[in-house]
Amino acid sequence: MEGRYEQQQQQHLDGSHNPCVEIAMEIHKVETPPKRSSLQKLKNRLKETFFPDDPLRQFKGQSTKKKWLLAFQYIFPILQWGPHYNLNLLKSDVVSGLTIASLAIPQGISYAKLANLPPIVGLYSSFVPPLVYAVLGSSKDLAVGPVSIASLLMGSMLRQEVSPTLDPLLFLQLAFTSTFFAGLFQASLGFLRLGFIIDFLSKATLNGFMAGAAIIVSLQQLKALLGIKHFTKEMGLVPVMSSVFHNTKEWSWHTILMGFCFLVFLLVARHISIKKPKLFWVSAGAPLLSVVLSTLIVFVSKAQNHGISVIGKLDQGLNPPSWNMLHFHGSHIGLVLKTGLITGIISLTEGIAVGRTFAALKSYQVDGNKEMIAIGVMNVVGSTTSCYITTGAFSRSAVNHNAGAKTAVSNIIMSMTVMVTLLFLMPLFRYTPNLVLGAIIVTAVIGLIDIPAAYQIWKVDKFDFIVMLCAFFGVIFISVQEGLALAVGISIFKMVLQMTRPKTVVLGNIPGTDIFRNKHQYKDAVSIPGFLILSIQAPISFANSNYLNERILRWIQDYEEEETKSHSNLRFLILDLAAVSAIDTNGVTFFQELRRVMEKRGVELVLVNPVGEVMEKLQQADGAKDLLQPRNLYLTVGEAVSSLFSTMKVVPSRDG
Amino acid sequence: MEGRYEQQQQQHLDGSHNPCVEIAMEIHKVETPPKRSSLQKLKNRLKETFFPDDPLRQFKGQSTKKKWLLAFQYIFPILQWGPHYNLNLLKSDVVSGLTIASLAIPQGISYAKLANLPPIVGLYSSFVPPLVYAVLGSSKDLAVGPVSIASLLMGSMLRQEVSPTLDPLLFLQLAFTSTFFAGLFQASLGFLRLGFIIDFLSKATLNGFMAGAAIIVSLQQLKALLGIKHFTKEMGLVPVMSSVFHNTKEWSWHTILMGFCFLVFLLVARHISIKKPKLFWVSAGAPLLSVVLSTLIVFVSKAQNHGISVIGKLDQGLNPPSWNMLHFHGSHIGLVLKTGLITGIISLTEGIAVGRTFAALKSYQVDGNKEMIAIGVMNVVGSTTSCYITTGAFSRSAVNHNAGAKTAVSNIIMSMTVMVTLLFLMPLFRYTPNLVLGAIIVTAVIGLIDIPAAYQIWKVDKFDFIVMLCAFFGVIFISVQEGLALAVGISIFKMVLQMTRPKTVVLGNIPGTDIFRNKHQYKDAVSIPGFLILSIQAPISFANSNYLNERILRWIQDYEEEETKSHSNLRFLILDLAAVSAIDTNGVTFFQELRRVMEKRGVELVLVNPVGEVMEKLQQADGAKDLLQPRNLYLTVGEAVSSLFSTMKVVPSRDG
Repeated sequence: MEGRYEQQQQQHLDGSHNPCVEIAMEIHKVETPPKRSSLQKLKNRLKETFFPDDPLRQFKGQSTKKKWLLAFQYIFPILQWGPHYNLNLLKSDVVSGLTIASLAIPQGISYAKLANLPPIVGLYSSFVPPLVYAVLGSSKDLAVGPVSIASLLMGSMLRQEVSPTLDPLLFLQLAFTSTFFAGLFQASLGFLRLGFIIDFLSKATLNGFMAGAAIIVSLQQLKALLGIKHFTKEMGLVPVMSSVFHNTKEWSWHTILMGFCFLVFLLVARHISIKKPKLFWVSAGAPLLSVVLSTLIVFVSKAQNHGISVIGKLDQGLNPPSWNMLHFHGSHIGLVLKTGLITGIISLTEGIAVGRTFAALKSYQVDGNKEMIAIGVMNVVGSTTSCYITTGAFSRSAVNHNAGAKTAVSNIIMSMTVMVTLLFLMPLFRYTPNLVLGAIIVTAVIGLIDIPAAYQIWKVDKFDFIVMLCAFFGVIFISVQEGLALAVGISIFKMVLQMTRPKTVVLGNIPGTDIFRNKHQYKDAVSIPGFLILSIQAPISFANSNYLNERILRWIQDYEEEETKSHSNLRFLILDLAAVSAIDTNGVTFFQELRRVMEKRGVELVLVNPVGEVMEKLQQADGAKDLLQPRNLYLTVGEAVSSLFSTMKVVPSRDG
Repeated sequence: MEGRYEQQQQQHLDGSHNPCVEIAMEIHKVETPPKRSSLQKLKNRLKETFFPDDPLRQFKGQSTKKKWLLAFQYIFPILQWGPHYNLNLLKSDVVSGLTIASLAIPQGISYAKLANLPPIVGLYSSFVPPLVYAVLGSSKDLAVGPVSIASLLMGSMLRQEVSPTLDPLLFLQLAFTSTFFAGLFQASLGFLRLGFIIDFLSKATLNGFMAGAAIIVSLQQLKALLGIKHFTKEMGLVPVMSSVFHNTKEWSWHTILMGFCFLVFLLVARHISIKKPKLFWVSAGAPLLSVVLSTLIVFVSKAQNHGISVIGKLDQGLNPPSWNMLHFHGSHIGLVLKTGLITGIISLTEGIAVGRTFAALKSYQVDGNKEMIAIGVMNVVGSTTSCYITTGAFSRSAVNHNAGAKTAVSNIIMSMTVMVTLLFLMPLFRYTPNLVLGAIIVTAVIGLIDIPAAYQIWKVDKFDFIVMLCAFFGVIFISVQEGLALAVGISIFKMVLQMTRPKTVVLGNIPGTDIFRNKHQYKDAVSIPGFLILSIQAPISFANSNYLNERILRWIQDYEEEETKSHSNLRFLILDLAAVSAIDTNGVTFFQELRRVMEKRGVELVLVNPVGEVMEKLQQADGAKDLLQPRNLYLTVGEAVSSLFSTMKVVPSRDG
């Protein structure tokens, strides 16, 4: 290695540079971006923060009339695709609409039970919200209705203060009020362009959370599947298992046998559809078939008299209005707000993620903030018409997509089917056994446990894996909300830690080029004697300026320790600032202090390729302009080295 | 512009490349860093996070005996400089020690009153802690003792629950206990290497906070300077001013006149020392002189009988032990812990900042974590010997430095002087008027209002300026602690926002080179037809992968709008990843999805210069390896463009 340094130096002294160094010797100026006022900058920053998708772009240069039309189309996407709707599309939508209806009816009843609500509320919630979404939503594949996780969350959070068995009316009122707040919150997030809040749920967090929630949900179904009557009110793994094994006397073998059969049937159907996506209708139809079959069996065998619990009598008729049931004051307002907030975020996350997934598959775009408004309005309207929280469900949307849905009309078809059910078919559910609902829920949530994704996370990022485990075990052992909060907290902590401890790497020259790269990554890269070249890889701010100071001094100490071996004094400290995307006042001070310290050591501080913002701030600060003198500022590391190299006096080398 | 693109393309077709493109055509491979196990990576990460200064470096390759010696020297820095101590150093230290003692005695008494404690506690706190620091501390200039901000904080926080006038003993006990916890907390921060927590107080935050606190402190002195007897117990601007103007009857003109004279005298002395740093002794001696003069005036004129309030009788003797006064249980434990935490952090911030400032001036290094342990131990010891919270004071350390202090011995000299005062001179303070203490405090804290620094912050960073204003007005109008919390919260929010909205910039070629730079900053930089080159300037993580996806699509739309004018189809999307210092699992998915979307658009995704960690993660993830094929991965943007350019078929140009 040493030979190489000296060779380079020798080359230089002979005047025999290689051509690229020659070219690099044409020094290029580092420019400042065109001046903008603070107001312009602020405007730009706000735009990038809140309107990264530039929603007003399409309005530019249009006539007033056209602008109004576009605005209406923007608010009601149905006006966009409605006029082009035709019979072919309708055929596809009817098929897919009926398919998801066959899934939505049994799932609606099951999820309502999961939320400790009357089963019929699940059907109400599959009637009104899909209609609202069809008008406002921009996804073509989203199948709207109640979902497992949000149902679980709402049920478990409200049960902390009110018992659904002792005071079912109050519980129902709180559920509607929570739904109202969830919708209000979702719509506000979209309206205030704060949609990035849901981005804080990383893939790892969601994976762990979903898997944990799936297990909690499945455990709850043991009540129905084993026929236990005195089941714990708690959710955690430990209390549920203890409740199960302390009530072995209540286990009903009729229930267990029948439940096991239907569970196996549903799981096999699910497995078939996974293996052959074309057979999506197998898993889509299986729940309804199970409901019909099990109801028939119970009806014929009068099994309800042999310890098999059934849903019982259900009301007939469409959603009654419920705005008089919303509670905006009273002792439970805190709980209701909290429940609304958490279920709102979680169901929004699911809805947006589902929308984005299928939009990417079909190469159209969904506007996150607009979707939030759509989902929010849908829940606000829902809360006044006896619906609890709904969103786009992943499993049903997948079926919708596979069944060939073309537009949101499939949601309307589904809604109409549910309406017919509500009006005429409710008595048929009287003898439907609870165990089949349990089996349907277990089959639905089992897909939330994604082992391959967990393995991927383990392979790619160990820290993310830890976050995932925290979410998973937090949900299972502590509580659903706290597990989630824990995982989000850890993710943000990691992010902050990344800012306080940015990477600094030593660059070396890739021989024969004017390229400088990380010496650790590129084994060929060589140091230039007399130069220490560092790349700083984060914005320099109050959170890391002290650290960077210490870290750079340590790099210099490292250099000096090698120096005694290589007999070359450190002359230049070159900082490659390409990756320093911003600085604050502490960052400016950092450069000033570093320069002073370097001067005392007889080392010149050279800056390379600062971005516009950094240039501007250093120019504005008093006493920092010196840092930007032509001798200390270069466009590339290569130009800096070749220019400064020529000014260096010869250092004593071992053979000279 | 267009001509240029075509010219370049034409050049290429003719085979008449410029030499640098020729050189760039020698494509260099992107390398992966050498493999390390997860454990090694974790170890490395932890080391960078908690031991950036590598404190064990000096122990490497030493004998066991030497290691022990070094360890002792590490813990007790006095062992390091003690053996080389000589008479010359002693002379300097005696001069500076006596100088700071003349400042420490009146300030000690004043600050204790500010904290609602008996004046003598201020002197106790100037006796023991400096001795402890002299043994453990590594700064040569720090003058240790009570400081204004921490005194104010402790006094105002404890007064929320306990009245210092109605229950002075309990108040004193809580003060000692808070000091104990503050010390424990400070030492733990140092021991656990969590010193970076104090970095979260940015320059802007501190500036606003200090100025606000200075005003609050000065307002409190209106009681003494106006001679008001019934003064508000609150701290805010509004209640104090209302208290002042509702008690105009209590204003004593004797007090006002005398206070005004001494205030002017002290301010003039301060002004002289600022203008001519050599005359530091003017401002250093003025407080003691004022005390002596005012005491004499009162004694001679018997002014205490004319409405001028005096300190009164003080005990004589050294610090009594106070470990029996520490309360570790009871109803006030929460308050005491909170007070300890906040005063601990604030006084630590001041102490460390002062130590670093003077170390930088004299070019030696102070170890932040070691200093924290020293200051923490000093406070724990102090709390058992009737001292309240102490740290390195900025004003006194400056005087110490100017007076020529060479080592921590100046602290010992100061401490001895205070001891003599405590033993023999206490009766002399009996007739010292409170107004002179008020004048001393106002003069001391007025230096905390740093208008030029505020102007600098305004010039450099508008956002930092807002943070500063929040801290300032928060302290003045809400409360000292909440103003501080507000400013820290906003700073962290900004940091998180920076992560969620990273910059993406379009790069263009600087003509005649193979350098690519931000087109906005470098007006000369030109686009290459068919290429969109983006640089992403932050780690890609869960918090920003959705945003980046949307933003990149918008860049492509922008390109396509121009496309229709320039007749060139987008063929390649080149992402310069030099500034992407890390990715997580969401980041990996981001690349995979972006690639899929680009493929559907017929655009090839090309990555340039990924850092080691990004390479590794993309290699480990299933289905992401395709991203790293040689055709899609280059070392520099120049190489990528020239290599891909040659594979492009000719696009129809306007004149062809």
